[in-house]
Amino acid sequence: MAETTKIRFGFIGCAEIARKVSRAVALAPNAVLHAVGSRSLDKARAFAVANGFPAATKVYGSYEAVLDDPDVDVVYVPLPTSLHLRWAVLAAGKKKHVMLEKPVALNVGEFDEIIAACESNGVQLMDCSMWMHHPRTSKMKEFLSDVNRFGQLKSIHSNFTLTASADFLENDIRVKPDLDALGALGDAGWYCLRAILWVANYELPKTVIALRSLVRNQFGVLLACGATLYWEDGKVATFYCSFLANMTVDITALGTKGALHVHDFIVPYEEKEASFFAATESGYDEGVTKWVNKPSEHVIKTEIPQEALMVNEFARLVADIKFKNAKPEKKWPTISRKTQLVIDAVKASIDKGFEPVQIQE
Amino acid sequence: MAETTKIRFGFIGCAEIARKVSRAVALAPNAVLHAVGSRSLDKARAFAVANGFPAATKVYGSYEAVLDDPDVDVVYVPLPTSLHLRWAVLAAGKKKHVMLEKPVALNVGEFDEIIAACESNGVQLMDCSMWMHHPRTSKMKEFLSDVNRFGQLKSIHSNFTLTASADFLENDIRVKPDLDALGALGDAGWYCLRAILWVANYELPKTVIALRSLVRNQFGVLLACGATLYWEDGKVATFYCSFLANMTVDITALGTKGALHVHDFIVPYEEKEASFFAATESGYDEGVTKWVNKPSEHVIKTEIPQEALMVNEFARLVADIKFKNAKPEKKWPTISRKTQLVIDAVKASIDKGFEPVQIQE
Repeated sequence: MAETTKIRFGFIGCAEIARKVSRAVALAPNAVLHAVGSRSLDKARAFAVANGFPAATKVYGSYEAVLDDPDVDVVYVPLPTSLHLRWAVLAAGKKKHVMLEKPVALNVGEFDEIIAACESNGVQLMDCSMWMHHPRTSKMKEFLSDVNRFGQLKSIHSNFTLTASADFLENDIRVKPDLDALGALGDAGWYCLRAILWVANYELPKTVIALRSLVRNQFGVLLACGATLYWEDGKVATFYCSFLANMTVDITALGTKGALHVHDFIVPYEEKEASFFAATESGYDEGVTKWVNKPSEHVIKTEIPQEALMVNEFARLVADIKFKNAKPEKKWPTISRKTQLVIDAVKASIDKGFEPVQIQE
Repeated sequence: MAETTKIRFGFIGCAEIARKVSRAVALAPNAVLHAVGSRSLDKARAFAVANGFPAATKVYGSYEAVLDDPDVDVVYVPLPTSLHLRWAVLAAGKKKHVMLEKPVALNVGEFDEIIAACESNGVQLMDCSMWMHHPRTSKMKEFLSDVNRFGQLKSIHSNFTLTASADFLENDIRVKPDLDALGALGDAGWYCLRAILWVANYELPKTVIALRSLVRNQFGVLLACGATLYWEDGKVATFYCSFLANMTVDITALGTKGALHVHDFIVPYEEKEASFFAATESGYDEGVTKWVNKPSEHVIKTEIPQEALMVNEFARLVADIKFKNAKPEKKWPTISRKTQLVIDAVKASIDKGFEPVQIQE
């Protein structure tokens, strides 16, 4: 692709996750890393060097400078959640497309302001749930959508847990009330809830009830929590997320005719191939001594890592807007908003002493 | 083993499950099938023929006749749950050891009467949760008990679902209010709750709250339900059971240092080998592109099927009582009772409109 038609990314902030996304921008054929800004020029420069940025990458000592650079098409926002509203709205106001880390905001009210800013400025908005872009994800969705293989969805369980280090529990932004006030719910829980909504074709549950067991740190930030989710048609989901248990990354989806299991849905065990387990019409043999139709493993290969596919998809949408006068794709902010709505409901249920909370779109 | 020292089993009833258990008695080296009784002599005879019972097997036209046979050591009770109290107590009164299908009773009050009858008559009592006797189960327990590999237990999820046939949903005892009034909770839910208690070293949860989504048939019998369980130390478990979703048979156990997954814990995929997945100190590599310490599969072989191992264990306990003046092993009725206690709590929560129910031992 000609350099002139590549979509130019500007990073505001040098968070850990920005390292991975900068590699993704480098790997995406239709994107180029144009600028990186930090509150400290030295930090931005060190980040650029440490991550092997091209010599042509602009290095700025402020976020504003990235937003003011007329050559930046996309602003990638890996800042703490408490800063999303301010910087996403400012970026949109400068006609920059916004690629936003998750959780997208501290609550859906904030996110609605971000959506409004993006819509009024005609820019694309997408959150950085990378796993959505892995080809495995669409293969799993094919299975879940197949009435003959999966049938009607009945139940979902998801857990995302990880053992945070002592340093993480002390210093990471995800345990700081002024930075990522949603803690494990906004981070690990985001993935579980997105996975559940994804399985349910983004149909919102009607009622959410938080689990009565949760862990907070000394500042009140959630380190572990969960919830049960109920749909009007009787579907039910449960999730559990934690910074205090060994890494598990599961989706279990149960249908009338089939079932799906995946154990590494966020970052696959291996970068270039990933698998899931699907079963249809499973049962016992007549003597109840073994299974018939036991789950089978489906392996999907990808040469391009999922985060580069994410950047590629975002840059494709931006290029369509920039060069072909297309409208922003509403699907992405819509599913971000639904995820945030359910997060808000879990938080509300916790705050109300584990009462049921109704979700209203 | 000499025929005279083998433990002699008498079956009362010819339920589907009795076919499998009769094969197990035939396979267990220390047990012999001595008698089978049904309310109809023809039915008992047909069952004996269809399952290839030895010619010497006594065939009776009543349950009482089995209990009155002085050569019967053990009475196996595969009757509908509503009949357990009556027949288990009668059997114990005749000094027969009692091997009881699950759920052990309609409620813990009934089961306490069964326990009292067995204790006062000095006979062994055990429920037929076959999977407890698979060598895989003790291997999984070794992992869960290892503070270096698994650490401290934080969370458990279990689901057991199966797609019942139209015939099952119409005619099976498990959907009849006068036979197995606990429905899916007593059948599929029994396994989930036993699995959860097993993972938790039989420490009872303090509080149980039923899921607000459940399915009943036209007689009010549960076809699908679930619950969340809470322990005093913050551990949490969720389970979901159903007759209306494709077969899934999962335990997920999360510890501070490790995690366990098993997907066929009740009847393994294959009869002679079974596996589980264990992970310790899992996480992402530095670039967050793949896992380190991903789960590994552990395969356990067994020449003798788990149900024969169960019969073997029961016959061993009975032989110790019969020939060595040993006392009955209290472990088995104790864990049956705990399972029933939690089932009762789930049912009570449902009956109270999904209110939290405290468990008192």
